[in-house]
Amino acid sequence: MRINRERLQDSMDRLGRIGETPRGGLTRLALSDEDRRGRDLLVEWMRGAGLTVSIDRMGNIFGLRPGGEALPPVFMGSHADSVPTGGKYDGQLGVLCALEAIRSLDDAQARTRHPVGMVIFTNEEGARFQPAMIGSGVMAGKIPLEDAYNARDRDGLRLGDELARIGYLGPEPCVPRPLRAYLELHIEQGPILEEESLPVGIVEGIVAISWSRLTLHGVQDHAGPTPMRIRHDALVAAAEVIRGVREIPRQVGGDMVSTVGRLDVSPNIPNAIPGRVVMSIDLRDPDDARVTRALGILDRVVREAARREGVRHELEHYWRVPRTDFHPEVVDAVERAAKSLGGGHRRILSGAGHDAQYMAAIAPTGMIFVPSRAGRSHCEEEFTAMDDIEHGANTLLRAAAELAGRAS
Amino acid sequence: MRINRERLQDSMDRLGRIGETPRGGLTRLALSDEDRRGRDLLVEWMRGAGLTVSIDRMGNIFGLRPGGEALPPVFMGSHADSVPTGGKYDGQLGVLCALEAIRSLDDAQARTRHPVGMVIFTNEEGARFQPAMIGSGVMAGKIPLEDAYNARDRDGLRLGDELARIGYLGPEPCVPRPLRAYLELHIEQGPILEEESLPVGIVEGIVAISWSRLTLHGVQDHAGPTPMRIRHDALVAAAEVIRGVREIPRQVGGDMVSTVGRLDVSPNIPNAIPGRVVMSIDLRDPDDARVTRALGILDRVVREAARREGVRHELEHYWRVPRTDFHPEVVDAVERAAKSLGGGHRRILSGAGHDAQYMAAIAPTGMIFVPSRAGRSHCEEEFTAMDDIEHGANTLLRAAAELAGRAS
Repeated sequence: MRINRERLQDSMDRLGRIGETPRGGLTRLALSDEDRRGRDLLVEWMRGAGLTVSIDRMGNIFGLRPGGEALPPVFMGSHADSVPTGGKYDGQLGVLCALEAIRSLDDAQARTRHPVGMVIFTNEEGARFQPAMIGSGVMAGKIPLEDAYNARDRDGLRLGDELARIGYLGPEPCVPRPLRAYLELHIEQGPILEEESLPVGIVEGIVAISWSRLTLHGVQDHAGPTPMRIRHDALVAAAEVIRGVREIPRQVGGDMVSTVGRLDVSPNIPNAIPGRVVMSIDLRDPDDARVTRALGILDRVVREAARREGVRHELEHYWRVPRTDFHPEVVDAVERAAKSLGGGHRRILSGAGHDAQYMAAIAPTGMIFVPSRAGRSHCEEEFTAMDDIEHGANTLLRAAAELAGRAS
Repeated sequence: MRINRERLQDSMDRLGRIGETPRGGLTRLALSDEDRRGRDLLVEWMRGAGLTVSIDRMGNIFGLRPGGEALPPVFMGSHADSVPTGGKYDGQLGVLCALEAIRSLDDAQARTRHPVGMVIFTNEEGARFQPAMIGSGVMAGKIPLEDAYNARDRDGLRLGDELARIGYLGPEPCVPRPLRAYLELHIEQGPILEEESLPVGIVEGIVAISWSRLTLHGVQDHAGPTPMRIRHDALVAAAEVIRGVREIPRQVGGDMVSTVGRLDVSPNIPNAIPGRVVMSIDLRDPDDARVTRALGILDRVVREAARREGVRHELEHYWRVPRTDFHPEVVDAVERAAKSLGGGHRRILSGAGHDAQYMAAIAPTGMIFVPSRAGRSHCEEEFTAMDDIEHGANTLLRAAAELAGRAS
């Protein structure tokens, strides 16, 4: 049993046009008009493949292919939102490979014992609404539905309102459901598979992730007649924090990464001393204890920077996902599928968060990585070769088929 | 001859409501709907005071009160736009005190030899469109009209289009016109008058100002699976530059001030390594040579920061206004007016740019400062006591009347 490469490529091309950037990347922010159009197209394809489509109260979209018995289904899936000026592979590929795997089961007239389904999760990126992975987080019971609804974007729009506006506030409860397994194919977003010339990674787990939000309150004033001696500049304090955050991995060692990705200045004009800065701090490590240690250092860095510049601060550690290890049975099934295809593979840990991280709490879960050119992701240069995609999709198809079992 | 304090206060209250912020400040960005409403009200008041109103191709608004002879007029004025979450005094006060001075001439049935007029300049703040002081800059022949029209705000809207949209693209040429004098009352925006308990400052001139724009091009990538060793983070380089800019005044000495007021990150989300940062650098000093020296240091700071992080950069020094000394005759007239009122005064140099800086190139120019509480400006806390405002407005009235001369 093999997937149909041309059909998959065609679906990628067509979905990739919705929210396409002039430089060939993708901007399809969660619950935007582009997201709605992307969802509409996917739902049309899912119905076309004979799936029973349902939508839950978080806008997560499910499509089910019946099995031979009334058993919990095997779900494959990912997300269809993107970061701004992101790429066409992150999330999209997992959704389209899931669809392609189901279409291939139909082509082969394969009858499985467990039902096989696909799922498209809402706002995985966390680019428009924080935190990330919010649709799977609510489903796994890790994020209260009301908190998710009340998340606001930069313009103050509520996630719940935007969900209703684009027509994807569904009737189904967003709660854990019995699942045989959850499988997610995704691009690696790092350099390892490419460096080792391997088409597929067998993902064993996901690193621990922590997100913090720092607000620095300086004294907004005129940039001209305000002598240096009386300034309390929120951006000068922020610059100290950025430097401090960059140093944290060196201090705690291991494979820790630290990033200040978002920074908003008020009033943000050339001739006013910044009165307020809001910034994000992203910390990740395979080891939960190291993330905890890093947060301690961050606290000190922030206190010291605020003290030196004489600014007030609020530091919230508002999101944390512990190190997640995937289910041995599912990881082994993925590995068997990869092995059966040849071409090489390796076990790998994910440095990026994925819906699979939350799904692992409520279902036996595993992931399949395909290589990212130069390790680049969350950018327009994101790219995975079609040979690798085909290899990954076939791995997904075989693993799902094995886990679903053959109907007698 | 005295101004009418209650009438002035009433005008301040009424104009101050247009674009008022919840915390009592003002957001009336240049050529916004609020700016249009403010302009409409001012024009109504100017016509009500019997002035002949005309509008030039930059949207600068002029109102003229005839004199006894066909001579160049004495103009008083300032601007009516604000920074975001700014105060109700910056610019507004100079415009309303000019109007009040003209109303007071009428009350006294004073006939002047030279006509007396007022002017409201477009986009003095440079908050929405860069550079600042663009209306007076075009009028003084220092900024080409086409460059001004092509200035774009953050949303890509053209200044020329916005001028037409709000109905203030006037028919008059925006060129130097013969003037007896230009007088501008403004808040000090610094701490000196308050520290010395003086109601009025006789402004001798304005410091040299330089604005630069720095773009840093890093490598946008995912904040998770991208190891620290391969990162090129535009925001980390920006943090180095912010620190370097803060150090410049210590290095060049004198009264130099340096500010990074604006900083925009792309894509500006928690989980992407910043691929691009655009930031402003504002440098000011009474001495042109010191600004030149500071720009040399800035060049080195930027080169070094970009080199260390391995990011590309573009640094444009796109706006420079040299140190401006006001006209001795006008400065003396202002001083005589202040002296005649008692209450104390001092000569002072402005650390902020004003339309008077460009007007000084085409007319004998002077300015009057009134105190700023705690030196605060470009913020909602901006405040000047009504006693000081009355004192300043009377100084303006008397200086303008002296310069206009008595009609025989």
